Amino acid sequence: MFYRLLFASLWYILPAYIANASACVFGGGTPLDLGKNFVDGRRIIGDGVTYKGSVFGIVCGTLVGLIQGILVDSNVFNSLDFYGTVLDHVILAFFLSTGAIVGDAMGSFIKRRLNIERGKPAPLLDQLDFVIGALVFGYLVAPIPHEMIIIICLFTVFIHLLGNIIAYKLGIKDVWW
Amino acid sequence: MFYRLLFASLWYILPAYIANASACVFGGGTPLDLGKNFVDGRRIIGDGVTYKGSVFGIVCGTLVGLIQGILVDSNVFNSLDFYGTVLDHVILAFFLSTGAIVGDAMGSFIKRRLNIERGKPAPLLDQLDFVIGALVFGYLVAPIPHEMIIIICLFTVFIHLLGNIIAYKLGIKDVWW
Repeated sequence: MFYRLLFASLWYILPAYIANASACVFGGGTPLDLGKNFVDGRRIIGDGVTYKGSVFGIVCGTLVGLIQGILVDSNVFNSLDFYGTVLDHVILAFFLSTGAIVGDAMGSFIKRRLNIERGKPAPLLDQLDFVIGALVFGYLVAPIPHEMIIIICLFTVFIHLLGNIIAYKLGIKDVWW
Repeated sequence: MFYRLLFASLWYILPAYIANASACVFGGGTPLDLGKNFVDGRRIIGDGVTYKGSVFGIVCGTLVGLIQGILVDSNVFNSLDFYGTVLDHVILAFFLSTGAIVGDAMGSFIKRRLNIERGKPAPLLDQLDFVIGALVFGYLVAPIPHEMIIIICLFTVFIHLLGNIIAYKLGIKDVWW
């Protein structure tokens, strides 16, 4: 029962994960805030969130939704009983991906207002900004039970920390966070 | 229905709020980590979490639970249908308060590991560390529905932000966070 809920949670949020990762991998170029400053004299969002990354993120995340829809539609996962048609999946994935990008930008916006530089850690906010954005946007088209929201948040923080520690041990990252 | 859930959530977490506030007000003196450093050469927890504050926090939070128990027992809130006896309230409040102190210490431990100085902001972690600790400890003796967990977390971040902005506008704080 718990594993089914865990799988359903990760299946639901997967497009947001892919959108967030793709935005990072395919980032660079013009930043979303066009380099402009906010009223406090600091950057609105910063160089971390770009047009190229955002578009690639939303496209890749939505494509994952298309694949999910086809898999469910062809009964590969015949135990998954939610999110009817392929189009439903694509629409949901588009909302989740867009929410992930917006959430990430909001997180950077908050960090700039608190005068935390890009790359400096903001525990919980760094890991959860894109997930919170995705959950809010996703909730508009496909609301999920509250326990799935909690599972998604806890799993995201856990897997983020685990990934960073592994990258640190492998010498890919200089710091463990 | 929602307001009832909101009230039940705040009623539940109240001892943790009081414990956290009391620990801050009655802080000072010997820090919990005795000034010692961790293996990374930085302080284990820091000067922010003290023995005096922790004891006062747990005592004040538990006293609030006693008052809650008496109010419920005397049917002042006759619509509140959970947490039976006065002793049940006191035990729950002791767990919530202890969890709040432990959560706060854990939050400071994480900030020190990430090399974030005391007083420097760590959005979400700063607001939620004591609440997460209280929820974990409280769950051991009186589990609550998942939606109450979400309400408590959202409300805490919201009220924290609101309080800081008001303090900033009144000139009590130098920064709005």
